[in-house]
Amino acid sequence: MYQSVLFPAAFCFVFLFGCHGKKEQPVQAKVLPYSHLEDLTYTLTQDFPYIHVHKLTFPFELKTMATLEKNGVRANTWVIHEHLGTHIDAPNHFQPDGISVDQIKPEDLIVPLVIIDIAPKAQKNKDAELTVSDIDKFEKANGRIPPHSCVMMFSGWGKYVKTPTYMGEDSSGTKHFPGFSVEAVKFLAEKRGIAGIGVDVISFDPGRDNNYTTHKVLFAYGKWAVENVANLEKVPATGATLIVGAPKVGEATGGIARIFAIW
Amino acid sequence: MYQSVLFPAAFCFVFLFGCHGKKEQPVQAKVLPYSHLEDLTYTLTQDFPYIHVHKLTFPFELKTMATLEKNGVRANTWVIHEHLGTHIDAPNHFQPDGISVDQIKPEDLIVPLVIIDIAPKAQKNKDAELTVSDIDKFEKANGRIPPHSCVMMFSGWGKYVKTPTYMGEDSSGTKHFPGFSVEAVKFLAEKRGIAGIGVDVISFDPGRDNNYTTHKVLFAYGKWAVENVANLEKVPATGATLIVGAPKVGEATGGIARIFAIW
Repeated sequence: MYQSVLFPAAFCFVFLFGCHGKKEQPVQAKVLPYSHLEDLTYTLTQDFPYIHVHKLTFPFELKTMATLEKNGVRANTWVIHEHLGTHIDAPNHFQPDGISVDQIKPEDLIVPLVIIDIAPKAQKNKDAELTVSDIDKFEKANGRIPPHSCVMMFSGWGKYVKTPTYMGEDSSGTKHFPGFSVEAVKFLAEKRGIAGIGVDVISFDPGRDNNYTTHKVLFAYGKWAVENVANLEKVPATGATLIVGAPKVGEATGGIARIFAIW
Repeated sequence: MYQSVLFPAAFCFVFLFGCHGKKEQPVQAKVLPYSHLEDLTYTLTQDFPYIHVHKLTFPFELKTMATLEKNGVRANTWVIHEHLGTHIDAPNHFQPDGISVDQIKPEDLIVPLVIIDIAPKAQKNKDAELTVSDIDKFEKANGRIPPHSCVMMFSGWGKYVKTPTYMGEDSSGTKHFPGFSVEAVKFLAEKRGIAGIGVDVISFDPGRDNNYTTHKVLFAYGKWAVENVANLEKVPATGATLIVGAPKVGEATGGIARIFAIW
């Protein structure tokens, strides 16, 4: 939603110059003007949904390690795996020679954000896919997707986040929620040179695909994805910058990420 | 270090407007011009140093959860606590009624970055402190610290990161590395209205203070801190914007953070 509130003037820097440790030519201050900041991250708690895989996955848990009363300091350990909460997937999640989260270049984590709204059709069909035709329609209305973007699917699924509908598991155990079609991901990687994709659902493959075909295709192109993205309805379809605070953990296939949009 | 390389033009947005899901007035595109991006985050691995507390803390570990060969997908669990690697401390780490990491406002995590260089005196004295006098000297040379900044100490300790000198433990078990003085933190919180502080060492109290006095004072003011910050020597003393990708974990007293500087 576009608002007119201006952000603190502290974000516009003036009169500041110089390098620490040595005298250099004063440099003209850079400006980072933006008027909106939206946090696209869910708070991770024990009741946050996760994809159940028998004998493998488990819910997030915060365990007390030290307390003020007993230890004079408060600290916790986390029972966590790499695909919990609002998180990033790295290409090595499925691709044999794919890069890990720590190897994604910083400049690929601060990129233009494009949001394609498929909520109307997802509302009628929980197996809806974001297709090449949706991308065509989007570009006709909004202009060409800029290179090096993150393209997010907005399905409106956020309102279901802590209900059974979020996963949409049927009596046979098959999940039902919207996702990217294989062809759409191919198109975005090949024809639009994207940096990554994102979704407001728990996984970017349509829920019913237990083979994770879209995952495999995206990662073969060396692109990343963010899942369980919050608050997309508050961000304009184009014009925002996405900042993905991906955890820099060696060899990680993914991990909780702090995600902001500014515009 | 100031460089002249320009960042991809993709960061300057033009022709983009509109809100998804509804027709709105086209809005003028915002620009996010910056020419430099520096990753201030160390890669977290098992050999990354941590503060040893008997029967409490432990090193980071990545444990295989699933493999491509066996499970058709690669994923790991993390053995982790909240104060490992490049990480943020929230006020509730020491302050009884302090806020947790997830409660820190997003707008307090994207702030002007100021770096005070005490490397020359730290090189002579591993117990060196960043004092109010260092702040005075800095402001005479660089202008007043803007409100809502993160003030970082650059001690040059990064070069020791995986050596015993980083912790500087002596034969009695006392640690020796530079840190913020209590008075400096009071001054910054009271007189400069900072958002937080940061250090290129493992803890922002001088290593020899086992009581963590500076921690207690900073958190009493409700401010955050980032520790084990990398690459500060590559960032100008003033004029950059800090982005702290703090993990949004409910009730957390801290946690691994992805930290960028752009300018």
